Amino acid sequence: MTYELGENRYGKSRIRLVTVRREPDHHDLRDLTVDVALEGDFAAAHVAGDNAGVIATDTMKNTVYAFALDHLTGSPEEFGLSLARHFGAAPQVSRATIGIREHGWSRIETPGGLAADAFQRSGPAVRVVEVTAARGQAVVVAGVEDLTVLKSTKSGFVGFERDRYTTLAETDDRIMATQVSATWAYGDAATADGFDFDGSHALAVERLLTTFAEHVSPSVQTSIWIMATAMLDADPAIDWVRMILPNLHHWTVDLTPFGLENRGEVFVPTTEPHGLIDATVRRHASG
Amino acid sequence: MTYELGENRYGKSRIRLVTVRREPDHHDLRDLTVDVALEGDFAAAHVAGDNAGVIATDTMKNTVYAFALDHLTGSPEEFGLSLARHFGAAPQVSRATIGIREHGWSRIETPGGLAADAFQRSGPAVRVVEVTAARGQAVVVAGVEDLTVLKSTKSGFVGFERDRYTTLAETDDRIMATQVSATWAYGDAATADGFDFDGSHALAVERLLTTFAEHVSPSVQTSIWIMATAMLDADPAIDWVRMILPNLHHWTVDLTPFGLENRGEVFVPTTEPHGLIDATVRRHASG
Amino acid sequence: MTYELGENRYGKSRIRLVTVRREPDHHDLRDLTVDVALEGDFAAAHVAGDNAGVIATDTMKNTVYAFALDHLTGSPEEFGLSLARHFGAAPQVSRATIGIREHGWSRIETPGGLAADAFQRSGPAVRVVEVTAARGQAVVVAGVEDLTVLKSTKSGFVGFERDRYTTLAETDDRIMATQVSATWAYGDAATADGFDFDGSHALAVERLLTTFAEHVSPSVQTSIWIMATAMLDADPAIDWVRMILPNLHHWTVDLTPFGLENRGEVFVPTTEPHGLIDATVRRHASG
Amino acid sequence: MTYELGENRYGKSRIRLVTVRREPDHHDLRDLTVDVALEGDFAAAHVAGDNAGVIATDTMKNTVYAFALDHLTGSPEEFGLSLARHFGAAPQVSRATIGIREHGWSRIETPGGLAADAFQRSGPAVRVVEVTAARGQAVVVAGVEDLTVLKSTKSGFVGFERDRYTTLAETDDRIMATQVSATWAYGDAATADGFDFDGSHALAVERLLTTFAEHVSPSVQTSIWIMATAMLDADPAIDWVRMILPNLHHWTVDLTPFGLENRGEVFVPTTEPHGLIDATVRRHASG
Repeated sequence: MTYELGENRYGKSRIRLVTVRREPDHHDLRDLTVDVALEGDFAAAHVAGDNAGVIATDTMKNTVYAFALDHLTGSPEEFGLSLARHFGAAPQVSRATIGIREHGWSRIETPGGLAADAFQRSGPAVRVVEVTAARGQAVVVAGVEDLTVLKSTKSGFVGFERDRYTTLAETDDRIMATQVSATWAYGDAATADGFDFDGSHALAVERLLTTFAEHVSPSVQTSIWIMATAMLDADPAIDWVRMILPNLHHWTVDLTPFGLENRGEVFVPTTEPHGLIDATVRRHASG
Repeated sequence: MTYELGENRYGKSRIRLVTVRREPDHHDLRDLTVDVALEGDFAAAHVAGDNAGVIATDTMKNTVYAFALDHLTGSPEEFGLSLARHFGAAPQVSRATIGIREHGWSRIETPGGLAADAFQRSGPAVRVVEVTAARGQAVVVAGVEDLTVLKSTKSGFVGFERDRYTTLAETDDRIMATQVSATWAYGDAATADGFDFDGSHALAVERLLTTFAEHVSPSVQTSIWIMATAMLDADPAIDWVRMILPNLHHWTVDLTPFGLENRGEVFVPTTEPHGLIDATVRRHASG
Repeated sequence: MTYELGENRYGKSRIRLVTVRREPDHHDLRDLTVDVALEGDFAAAHVAGDNAGVIATDTMKNTVYAFALDHLTGSPEEFGLSLARHFGAAPQVSRATIGIREHGWSRIETPGGLAADAFQRSGPAVRVVEVTAARGQAVVVAGVEDLTVLKSTKSGFVGFERDRYTTLAETDDRIMATQVSATWAYGDAATADGFDFDGSHALAVERLLTTFAEHVSPSVQTSIWIMATAMLDADPAIDWVRMILPNLHHWTVDLTPFGLENRGEVFVPTTEPHGLIDATVRRHASG
Repeated sequence: MTYELGENRYGKSRIRLVTVRREPDHHDLRDLTVDVALEGDFAAAHVAGDNAGVIATDTMKNTVYAFALDHLTGSPEEFGLSLARHFGAAPQVSRATIGIREHGWSRIETPGGLAADAFQRSGPAVRVVEVTAARGQAVVVAGVEDLTVLKSTKSGFVGFERDRYTTLAETDDRIMATQVSATWAYGDAATADGFDFDGSHALAVERLLTTFAEHVSPSVQTSIWIMATAMLDADPAIDWVRMILPNLHHWTVDLTPFGLENRGEVFVPTTEPHGLIDATVRRHASG
């Protein structure tokens, strides 16, 4: 054979799923998008057109719905664990990966209190989960995406390298805006029963947001370090934090042609182009 | 001349704008996307290539930024009025239309209280405004878009017409989900100084959401009527309400092939295809 | 009654549909997105929760699929006519509107010739149709959307109004780029049997593109006039042409800080903000 | 120190760039979106707020525009190489990655021939490039994205595993549709001067499309193997091919409730959920 199969995975993506749990005095709502991906002994399917070991992606979709009935009663991480362990137990599978995006809903607020069975989409932030199960070991990564935040001060950018192509002026007071994509890994304790995924998630997001609001930022890079270390400080269950932060530039509009002075009041927000900063902070091996 | 110019308008769209107002102990943030469109005596520009009367769309953009400095201090409706009146006063303009989408931001909540100068995008709902000024008369239409809501009960659909192509079963308990696009017109009182646009907007959205949560829906059409009349009841300043509601179907998953019973707990949410219901409710002429 | 129902319509949107016709030596492929909307006597559904006259939007979807089997054998305009006439014939319906977007596919080119049964999506332009049937009369509007074109010369913009907020320089040579949305109405001849919708559509698009390429543009407004009149000249079946053209600005990059001269070679294409020009050209009443 | 910086990279994304080359009798057009990302010795920026070694992302943007004037005269791969080598030569940089998406334009066809200076966007497929330069060594990966293709026959799926959750029927004739994302690596020969990147790209895409059209597919996995090996067969400069193929299911509509028989003529195309197959095929180490 002249050629060989390299890395490969397959699965079902964008399985949409809503559950309604009907308690006597109220309903609970969950709204997930689930991705399933498998790696393992699938060479015959590629090289020989032999589907004998192939779990159809349609079967994956059915499995997600069937599992939703009984296993989606707690956190999305626990649901991901049940699915990853199910698929990971198939003999031909070496690794099963379950990706989940949870779309947030809050109860509608009425003059008479929170609605029992009517909901409003909150957002744009989504809670994300990635669970992998490989050879009996599971790993849970949690996170948040599309969490868009802005600081109107306490951000600057000075002392950077200047070369032939540098025109950017230094500034000690700029708007810093970003759409946070943050993920963090829970250690082994999390895969035992009873781990409080919801509590850890809420604490991580609270630390991220509070630190974003309070710190003084000399660069997006430093902001990641400061926010990530605050999250690690707060929760010993977290092994590492990764953040991918676009720098959504806000340019001060020059109003002098119109005889007006713009003292940091009017800005053009932009999305294209944007800076993009990606860094992981982890506990020191001997830490 | 064999041909003639029919309806025409032109302008600048998607002018992005953020303002930061720096109070001693906190900052205020606004985030708008503004569209400007003009109608009037522009035949020469089309037919003869004569731009003498053309206000460049680049000038429109500049004007929006310049006006933001001094006129964007209250509601987006008031900002829209100032722009519409400015452009509508040009002699060649018969009608100026200002469209505004306000993107919501809330202060970040920290253990020490609300942040003074750090913000989080709320959403996905956006506040919308359309102001027209024509021959000295201004009209203000306010609204909300992308307000996504779901009722997990108190919705049914029975008694509809059945023909050769009808397969839909009747149901007295279904999920009703929609992405509300609602607009409403304020009467003449609103264009006088001092009208409380923020208060009227908040009341309209509260009535819409509360009614959505509380009513029993025999159809999306009836839901529009019920919600719109509640909004008209609450605020005499509103002349009419228009709603465009997609029916975002949630299909109950059949779990019987897996030996499971789905008692209204697991659903597939869909966006394609969707129903789309569009209706206007107005005060009766002699009402 | 204090309130009354104003304008209203309802229907099914984004009905996706692919047909494969299996000829002895090749297959033909069509790919449509269909919207159905009805107006008529639906007050009871809104005001009284009475669905007796309501054609369910699920029934509309079924009807589109059933009609596709026998009626989608020619142009999308003919398919739209068959659907509009079907829904328009219901006694409670005063107007039925069928919107169609046809997504283009071309046969894959292979060294051995065009593939008989394998296709590649062409685009991004889509063919659009809107057919209305009201009280036995049908009207067909055809068009094209997302047809993105660019002229690298023969476009300028001079002589426009200058006021306090004008900073734009005049230019006699700029890039003109736009994403054409064009629609045109066929007269009564088109609703008789045997009208060549495909031929008229191809001619209209050819005239639009050729004129775009060849003309000298003093403004987007004039370009619309020139292109539309060329289309009307070419096909007497067309009553009017409407174009909605964003002006997708391409800004010349200033390279002088780097000791380089940019003689109209390097540009930043932008989409936000953009000019937006919308005009209709019709045959003169006495033309 | 309790924590340490893990993997990190930063750069500028979505730098939009159009060039027009003005030859005596025609213009040439290029339209790129460029991403720059750097890895290297940037710990001080993260941990200590020290920007001394930081190349500002604004400088990256300027560099791309300046390089476009003189270095974007051939293929996008060559442009990527010049940028990657420039940034990779900075002492603090261990790896520079340049990502490019080229948006296709074709000359407008007129009755008088191809336009000299007017263009139409072709698509939706885009040509992609990723060049990395690390410690003096460059690697070029080329590819194509959003190449949407469909086979109306010669595709089946049988013999797959059946478990408790399997309901999918076997089929020996189905529609196979996908949106191809394919990348391939050129070996060392490609980084020497004079390599014909345009020729290799055209050959790879031709082989991919022709093989897609002609082969009989027992699964998407096998299709990847067949297409990738055809590409490797055709061009010894290619070391490996990776394909990521969504399976865009087309479901046969059941028309029997309407008394009609659907013999594989009417389908519902879907995008959610979809299968997703990702595999790499490489030359055998001893091949």
